Amino acid sequence: MGFFDVISPRAIATSALVLTTFAQDALAAPKAPWIRPGGGYYGKKKMSNHIKRAIEGNNQKRAPETPFCAESLTTTVKAPKDNVWGTLVDVEIASVVEWLFAQEDLNLTITDDATGWDNTIQLVEAMWPNKTDALAYIDGTGPAPTKYAHVVLNNRATEDAHYADILVGPLPIDNATAKWEPLTYLHNKPSGGKVRNLDADNDIVYSEWLFKIGASVADITLDLWNATAMGLENDTLSIWGIDPLWQDDGRIIRWDTFWNTPTEVFDDSTLLPLGLYFSSDVTGRDPSKWKLEGWLYNGIFYETTEAFRAAYWSEGFVKHGANVDGDWARTDHQGEPLPMDSAAAPELIAPAGNRFAVDHKQNYVEWQDYSFYIGFTRDAGMALYDIRYKGERLIYELGLQEALAHYAGNDPMNSGTAYLDTFYGFGPYTFELVKGYDCPAHAVYLNTSFYVAETTHTHIDSVCLFEYVSDFPIQRHTTSDYVSVTKNTYFVARSISTIGNYDYMFSYSFFNDGSISVEVRASGYIQSAFFAGNGDYGFKIHDNLSGSMHDHVLNFKVDFDILGTNNSVQLMSTVPVSKSYPWSKGKVRNTMALSRSFIENEDEGRFNWGHNSATQVLVVNEDELNKHGELRGYRILPYTGAGHLVVENSTNLANAANWASHDIQITKRKDTEYKGAHAYNSQDVHDPPIDFAKFFDGENLRKEDLVLWLNLGMHHIPHTGDLPNTVMTTAHSGIQFMPSNYFDGDLSRRTVNQVRINYENGTATEIETFGQFKAAEDGSCGTCKLDYTPADRKHGDYHGDIVVRKFPFDPNNPYFESESI
Amino acid sequence: MGFFDVISPRAIATSALVLTTFAQDALAAPKAPWIRPGGGYYGKKKMSNHIKRAIEGNNQKRAPETPFCAESLTTTVKAPKDNVWGTLVDVEIASVVEWLFAQEDLNLTITDDATGWDNTIQLVEAMWPNKTDALAYIDGTGPAPTKYAHVVLNNRATEDAHYADILVGPLPIDNATAKWEPLTYLHNKPSGGKVRNLDADNDIVYSEWLFKIGASVADITLDLWNATAMGLENDTLSIWGIDPLWQDDGRIIRWDTFWNTPTEVFDDSTLLPLGLYFSSDVTGRDPSKWKLEGWLYNGIFYETTEAFRAAYWSEGFVKHGANVDGDWARTDHQGEPLPMDSAAAPELIAPAGNRFAVDHKQNYVEWQDYSFYIGFTRDAGMALYDIRYKGERLIYELGLQEALAHYAGNDPMNSGTAYLDTFYGFGPYTFELVKGYDCPAHAVYLNTSFYVAETTHTHIDSVCLFEYVSDFPIQRHTTSDYVSVTKNTYFVARSISTIGNYDYMFSYSFFNDGSISVEVRASGYIQSAFFAGNGDYGFKIHDNLSGSMHDHVLNFKVDFDILGTNNSVQLMSTVPVSKSYPWSKGKVRNTMALSRSFIENEDEGRFNWGHNSATQVLVVNEDELNKHGELRGYRILPYTGAGHLVVENSTNLANAANWASHDIQITKRKDTEYKGAHAYNSQDVHDPPIDFAKFFDGENLRKEDLVLWLNLGMHHIPHTGDLPNTVMTTAHSGIQFMPSNYFDGDLSRRTVNQVRINYENGTATEIETFGQFKAAEDGSCGTCKLDYTPADRKHGDYHGDIVVRKFPFDPNNPYFESESI
Repeated sequence: MGFFDVISPRAIATSALVLTTFAQDALAAPKAPWIRPGGGYYGKKKMSNHIKRAIEGNNQKRAPETPFCAESLTTTVKAPKDNVWGTLVDVEIASVVEWLFAQEDLNLTITDDATGWDNTIQLVEAMWPNKTDALAYIDGTGPAPTKYAHVVLNNRATEDAHYADILVGPLPIDNATAKWEPLTYLHNKPSGGKVRNLDADNDIVYSEWLFKIGASVADITLDLWNATAMGLENDTLSIWGIDPLWQDDGRIIRWDTFWNTPTEVFDDSTLLPLGLYFSSDVTGRDPSKWKLEGWLYNGIFYETTEAFRAAYWSEGFVKHGANVDGDWARTDHQGEPLPMDSAAAPELIAPAGNRFAVDHKQNYVEWQDYSFYIGFTRDAGMALYDIRYKGERLIYELGLQEALAHYAGNDPMNSGTAYLDTFYGFGPYTFELVKGYDCPAHAVYLNTSFYVAETTHTHIDSVCLFEYVSDFPIQRHTTSDYVSVTKNTYFVARSISTIGNYDYMFSYSFFNDGSISVEVRASGYIQSAFFAGNGDYGFKIHDNLSGSMHDHVLNFKVDFDILGTNNSVQLMSTVPVSKSYPWSKGKVRNTMALSRSFIENEDEGRFNWGHNSATQVLVVNEDELNKHGELRGYRILPYTGAGHLVVENSTNLANAANWASHDIQITKRKDTEYKGAHAYNSQDVHDPPIDFAKFFDGENLRKEDLVLWLNLGMHHIPHTGDLPNTVMTTAHSGIQFMPSNYFDGDLSRRTVNQVRINYENGTATEIETFGQFKAAEDGSCGTCKLDYTPADRKHGDYHGDIVVRKFPFDPNNPYFESESI
Repeated sequence: MGFFDVISPRAIATSALVLTTFAQDALAAPKAPWIRPGGGYYGKKKMSNHIKRAIEGNNQKRAPETPFCAESLTTTVKAPKDNVWGTLVDVEIASVVEWLFAQEDLNLTITDDATGWDNTIQLVEAMWPNKTDALAYIDGTGPAPTKYAHVVLNNRATEDAHYADILVGPLPIDNATAKWEPLTYLHNKPSGGKVRNLDADNDIVYSEWLFKIGASVADITLDLWNATAMGLENDTLSIWGIDPLWQDDGRIIRWDTFWNTPTEVFDDSTLLPLGLYFSSDVTGRDPSKWKLEGWLYNGIFYETTEAFRAAYWSEGFVKHGANVDGDWARTDHQGEPLPMDSAAAPELIAPAGNRFAVDHKQNYVEWQDYSFYIGFTRDAGMALYDIRYKGERLIYELGLQEALAHYAGNDPMNSGTAYLDTFYGFGPYTFELVKGYDCPAHAVYLNTSFYVAETTHTHIDSVCLFEYVSDFPIQRHTTSDYVSVTKNTYFVARSISTIGNYDYMFSYSFFNDGSISVEVRASGYIQSAFFAGNGDYGFKIHDNLSGSMHDHVLNFKVDFDILGTNNSVQLMSTVPVSKSYPWSKGKVRNTMALSRSFIENEDEGRFNWGHNSATQVLVVNEDELNKHGELRGYRILPYTGAGHLVVENSTNLANAANWASHDIQITKRKDTEYKGAHAYNSQDVHDPPIDFAKFFDGENLRKEDLVLWLNLGMHHIPHTGDLPNTVMTTAHSGIQFMPSNYFDGDLSRRTVNQVRINYENGTATEIETFGQFKAAEDGSCGTCKLDYTPADRKHGDYHGDIVVRKFPFDPNNPYFESESI
């Protein structure tokens, strides 16, 4: 019996849309009005019925737009094995959801119907296989690992509201065998798979608490800003505050502040703080027991509203101006046009179409002799798996674990903000890419999807794959007789996640010499501070605005498999030495030498990039020497900046981000230490579900399956150039993995995209182009049509989210809806 | 009277070509057989007579190849002022040379006729103006600075052979006013402008010394390698050794070693060391007093040839194999072809032609609102001057000062090698670029030229200027309502200098946000070591080969003028703090804050990049606050790796490269401290003509005209991936200059190459392209022809050097000659 054919009467009865104007328009939340942690339900827009083609079109194979100037390229390929890190398909999700609703012990309510005291399904996605199971399949003849769903329940029908990680399966669901069990082994505390939910009462926090407080000081907000924050339609202020909440001494403390709202489409609310802060003790789920604990304005703390009001209306009270949006906060073109800028700008073309192959069903990619699979999760977005060169695995898993943005300031809002962005999730915000801008127009684009409230949302064209050529060659040499030079073509897999105000661009690049880079570039709006005596925490960048200082740290898991899983990490430093030699005639020479050591165990497993970049970090296989007796391996090389968190023992984060304290951290790989952070670590910072520091328990790191946890980052002190948006030229961090005695020689010799010209007496006497593609003699690219379609041609296709309802399962009526998750 | 009309009888008499087979074929020298310091004369090739067009064609304005898809672009511009950092024109050089030969006190001999005991002209080029004089001209109404020639004489007609820096002028030469004087003020020791020349006897070092020693062990070299190094036509070994020579205790000591020679065109000699070393005391100019001081093989030192020979022929002597070239050392395509690689690779096109303007006569460039002049010198190659944005100068001078490559090893050759590359000169090796490989095919190319032996050599198309677009945008932001994204087009000025084995690519890039980057990437052949027990100094990378460890450090002078010349350097660090606040309820919070300080004087002026990249280095004008009260300035930001020399108090370099000891060094700008290094520092390492350390004498650095001396670098431990050539993907170092509160907001808002798409319900509801260029609706780029000429079309034009004889001046008979300088 097909499991998705039967829709239970209960489900149908509860599937009506429940919209409240309040929920849609007036709710304000951390980071930006339209971004939400995954807990709430915020309404659905009207359905449309013509979009199946958009989804299907992108899941089918794409032929190159017109192959020409070349042999006909085969740009589809069948993956050697199924992608075991893939997402679930529609019917699988629908079947899991249906089965879950049939389990009475779970006491689940349809999200549309749920109140703050109901249990709902927060997440349904594919559970990753254990590595040993995956290897048996991808490297051997074993069966594909049994498929399970990873489900998160948002259990609020209890005083102790919590998220519950559970496993559901096996898939496909068979009522005779399907079961659920707590997913406990990922948590490194005795949790039963549960994590405290401090966000359970988000709705009443606004309706019953924050807006009432806003109303209680309406006289002041009207006087200061001619505006209110009372939960009304015509409010032009919003209220939101710190993340994580203070969780000390058994109390849950909020700090909130007032913000102006944008007056146009531009998402500049994080540039409009107003400088009035208040603190609430919101411990427990009974609002009648919550307490307002004081006000802060202009650096002065008032214990009560009365005290604040009295001071406010007294003579000599110092009032500051507001931050109000305007051209300074708008990203549109402005200022004097640049010379020649209205002429077409340089653009990359792919004359032969794309020179790589994709299995669109399996999200499997081959470029030159590299291959990899793409996985995608709600928490961390895109990740790469089973990265191989010529069939030999280099990396089993490469992906983001968590990203933090830790602010500081002389006010409680900025001092108290330390976002752990997987709480919001990178997956839901992996938006559609703009062709010709975010990636070349000719790139291959893939869709991504995520679960929310009994639907899946699909972002069309939100991962791009393309080949590019850098402005510099990969190799060259000139003498007075000849010149040899090779193009640096490379391959990029990219996605961009906009977590509220900030856009994080993740680029994984593959090069001809065997090197691979991981880069993050950031743009979007900064989260700023109200300027009032906080010069020690940032620059003043506008009328009443401080570019609030903050550290970005992004943790990547890199599970290298260098010629198998028995790997070691070697440090090799260039060090000054003073030494005499048999030939130095008794003299001591000041020179240098190499100093080598291995990271023996996890006690030595956490460290930083060394002084003067003089220490190489090498992942090697001690049992695999090359023919010269050297260890084959890969070097980890800082590229465009990297760093760790400056704050030590952060009061905000406690144990929730212990992964951020060092540049490089190495552990023995274990199924129970699969993720470096839990998306809900922010909900219990002192005793989080995954405390990264507990990974370090002295285990051996020589000849073991190792995971490197690498931090990228940036100490960001926004200046006027961050207005309106931070720019990706300088907001960057990256790491390269480069072969170190891994191959016999430079791999880039294999490309024909090189030339050698011998010359003499002013004449090229020999031009060797190695069989590379040559254009016709008339310079017109022969009879071929050139693949240059200016990017503006495609903007009309920009979609937004496509939503498919899973319960009741309604695959034939997808609709567009991007308002929120 | 025209000064270039009269050719003296003496000059004509001495202008005959003097070629010796010996000099051309058998001479071996440091770094590669074909590379030479500027001292010698090595013959001329046959003349050709059809190349004037090549020179003139490139000095004339270039129209864009076909302007289309756009307004017609005007890509030539007249520089606002003459380039006062320019090179001398042919007639100026000819007149200086003629005048010099007329000065009997200089006792000069035509280089073609000169022996090792004659004085010759080593260099004639433009003397740079003092900055105060230049500013009066470029910023005011003052006259152009009086023009002088900087001349170096190679005075060998004396026991104390020396190079003499002199000034000759004013130009144009008028016999009534012209004079010469020692150029003393650049040397920071009492030198009279003179520098010891240890290279004066280079010819007889070979003929009278090294080859005789080679012959004395011919029995051994034949036995070991079936080859000889005796100065014979059929020698297949070369001999060369350390640089600088040992200069301790009043003695001049050489260490030399044997190398195999390449068997094909490939310049792989530096991969073919043979592991036999010998030491000579070559103090003084009388070869009869030189002494052989011992041999080294396999780590064993022998004091005499007899002792070495006795050991060699005794039983049990351990012999190693040779390094012999082969495919492993050849850069040509090899290995299995890559999938799809014979299809045309991605390529950048400029649909509208070039969107920038050049004054080809003045080497002046305008891109968007940036402008700058290009200068060029024999020592350091290309440099940029008077870099402005919208007419406001940011940087007065930006250019390389010196580059070192300091090796280490257990043998005296590698331990003793510490190249200071301006000795060889970056200018003479700024070779012609390969279009479509080194730079885009559509780039604008400029020529460079340098003086040697009464001629000037011109490298056609050896500087390129182009606009590119990166694979990522400069700005973007998405919400559920709209997306805004801006292309990252940028402008590059590039040259590549191949100093013997190594190719250094210098790229100066300009970005839309006001940031500027300086990058060096390296390729070419490594200089390797014979592998014999030297695992502490590198990897074994081939049969008998070690990838000899070495540090590259490249020093750049950056003379910022931030809103005038009164600048300061501020350090701003993100530091952890533990602090309570009025609102923190008595609790101490672990957070962070900014810590700021100024570099007060030169005693504090030398430092390194800080731990965790947490310290910003800002060049500011303390008197120029922006409207928010913040200091306007530029930040110095490490980009793709940077570093300083690991070796402390190098025995090889002594005081010759004191600029290499720190990442960042700041001095008060002075006319007498114009260059950070002298090209002949290697000739007198203990007491060099320019000792950079002497710049630091405690002078005030607050509100002064400052120079930042920034080191780029790389600790290079070559591995198998450096064979045959090092690759530019990972051999890189760069620094960015980014605005810090310099402008009111992000400058990139000025470009129209951005798009905003509002979307709703799956439809783009507004597409704003800001008047940017749009193609025709049929996607064909309208009726415009697309500027895509595959790069292979242009390789036949590759030229090599064009030589114009200056004495006798013979401008109408240029010839091609790239054999050597």
